[in-house]
Amino acid sequence: MTATNRQIVLKSRPDGWVTPDHFEMREVSVPDIGDGDVLVRALYMSLDPYMRGRIGTDRPPADRMPLGGPMEARVVGRVAASRNADFREGDLVFGSLDWADYSVAAGGGGLRLLPDARQDGKPVPLAWHLGALGLPGMTAWIGMQIAQPVAGETLFVSAASGAVGQIVGQIAKIRGMRAVGSAGTDAKVAFLTDDLGFDAAFNYKTASPDILSALQSCAPGGLDVYFDNVGGLLLEAALDAANLRARIIACGMVSQYNLPREQTTGVRNLPHINRKRIRMQGMGVGDHGHRQAEFLDEMAGWLASGQIRYRVDIADGLENAPTAFVAMLKGENFGKQVVRIADDN
Amino acid sequence: MTATNRQIVLKSRPDGWVTPDHFEMREVSVPDIGDGDVLVRALYMSLDPYMRGRIGTDRPPADRMPLGGPMEARVVGRVAASRNADFREGDLVFGSLDWADYSVAAGGGGLRLLPDARQDGKPVPLAWHLGALGLPGMTAWIGMQIAQPVAGETLFVSAASGAVGQIVGQIAKIRGMRAVGSAGTDAKVAFLTDDLGFDAAFNYKTASPDILSALQSCAPGGLDVYFDNVGGLLLEAALDAANLRARIIACGMVSQYNLPREQTTGVRNLPHINRKRIRMQGMGVGDHGHRQAEFLDEMAGWLASGQIRYRVDIADGLENAPTAFVAMLKGENFGKQVVRIADDN
Repeated sequence: MTATNRQIVLKSRPDGWVTPDHFEMREVSVPDIGDGDVLVRALYMSLDPYMRGRIGTDRPPADRMPLGGPMEARVVGRVAASRNADFREGDLVFGSLDWADYSVAAGGGGLRLLPDARQDGKPVPLAWHLGALGLPGMTAWIGMQIAQPVAGETLFVSAASGAVGQIVGQIAKIRGMRAVGSAGTDAKVAFLTDDLGFDAAFNYKTASPDILSALQSCAPGGLDVYFDNVGGLLLEAALDAANLRARIIACGMVSQYNLPREQTTGVRNLPHINRKRIRMQGMGVGDHGHRQAEFLDEMAGWLASGQIRYRVDIADGLENAPTAFVAMLKGENFGKQVVRIADDN
Repeated sequence: MTATNRQIVLKSRPDGWVTPDHFEMREVSVPDIGDGDVLVRALYMSLDPYMRGRIGTDRPPADRMPLGGPMEARVVGRVAASRNADFREGDLVFGSLDWADYSVAAGGGGLRLLPDARQDGKPVPLAWHLGALGLPGMTAWIGMQIAQPVAGETLFVSAASGAVGQIVGQIAKIRGMRAVGSAGTDAKVAFLTDDLGFDAAFNYKTASPDILSALQSCAPGGLDVYFDNVGGLLLEAALDAANLRARIIACGMVSQYNLPREQTTGVRNLPHINRKRIRMQGMGVGDHGHRQAEFLDEMAGWLASGQIRYRVDIADGLENAPTAFVAMLKGENFGKQVVRIADDN
């Protein structure tokens, strides 16, 4: 065990684009643990777009990550020391912990043993527990229930090669829908159709400014579900292409998070919501925590059968987390973004 | 009976603001009727914002009112001649008929005898059958069911002194909610609080550009339901003022109907839908026709008990219908807009 513990803390709040300078690394001692506590050695941590909202100024103070404190993330790690009967040294666990080499889960709070999950007969990569089996996967699973998919309908998902989008499109296929995705590079687009089984996909950057035509080429019969991870111009195109009684899952609007309000995209065609009787539903997976066991059970089955595959993008080293976080918000990741903090030896 | 029948027909399709010049009056003969048909002498007809959508170019052709044909409206009238056993000369009826002195309901199609409805012991004014008891009232009633109101919550409705808004606010009060409304003149605002029992109201024109502050003064605890008849800047303010899990009923967006797309309001704060887990539901009363009897029953009870009161704005003379239609779209009416076509002698 190292004597020091590296942590990444929030140094200042961004107003506009977040940069690595909004964070800093500090070294502290690995803490002693008290009765009931668990010390976790981090192996992988998750970087997610929602974190941008929690470090900015547009949330109520209670929803913000505190200045000067370690950032929080979902982490997969091994128990390094335990004074809690539910966890033993060496157990693989998952929890909301610090951006750090080591974190203490006070009283074991929120820690879970990793569930057994396999693909092609082998345990899935540890990082998948932060993606397909983590909050992104559960977000896709809950959102697809809210969407009330019907076999034969068409679904469109933006940021389709990302943490949530990959799962959304594959669940759509499992439900008998036609799946259409957008992404920001030709390689991602090819991955969607060639590796994940999407029916069609397009590069929204090269299609711009005529995103609608690209979307309509991929979905000539219109959209019945739009799973929105992006907002802005892709939402506007989806509203134009939506069919009567379409459902829009407002899961995230990452294109807008780093813009001051006067620079955000004004969406001009909201009367379609009335005209086409669209239901647009904001969602957060945090409202559905009681369904986690049910989710893990179904997802593990899909992984085992190979019906769902998953791609992660690994940044190496805790020290590179701020850079990887900013790059992810710019769409530079390819697959679910995680940070490898230590090798699992 | 007159020998001639005046009809107002659609002469050209507006692209931008509709004007009276998009219509023209023509005189035709009062038609003979065939077996099963009913000839109706119009007394009052309804002018509604949805008509703007049906004369423009942004709907599928099947949804448009035809060029050169008489405009269609909800009409209250008396049977002038009948070859249908369900209707006798002199019956008061309601139906979707022409903007005209006389219309034929082929086979009696869509005609209904006026239901009995009273307030203060007397039959309600005939024009109310186009408002509180007509499609606007039913739109409010259905929308308020979709909104899932909870006693103690706060509702905001725009165009609150209009055909639908008056009913929305009064149903909110019946459901134990705090009701807040916006309107475009101080007299309308006073009517909402003094005559209809709204808890608070504001003039969005004098409040502009800081609509949000005016709304927050009226709803210091935030909004749980926004019943949107207007769209644009009022929708944007409502999204800002919305509470977690608010519901937005997208009933209409009249502020946007007469603007070419590049002049419509870009709504910049849609990430609130995700962040606050808002449900925004487009609705059209046409999807709920099977519930009309249930609606009429409940509304007649509220009118009889005086729990719901209603204001109409009467334009006199069929020839003035185009002018009144344009004025209504500009918000110049005060109460539900109808046209009196003939006195009921």
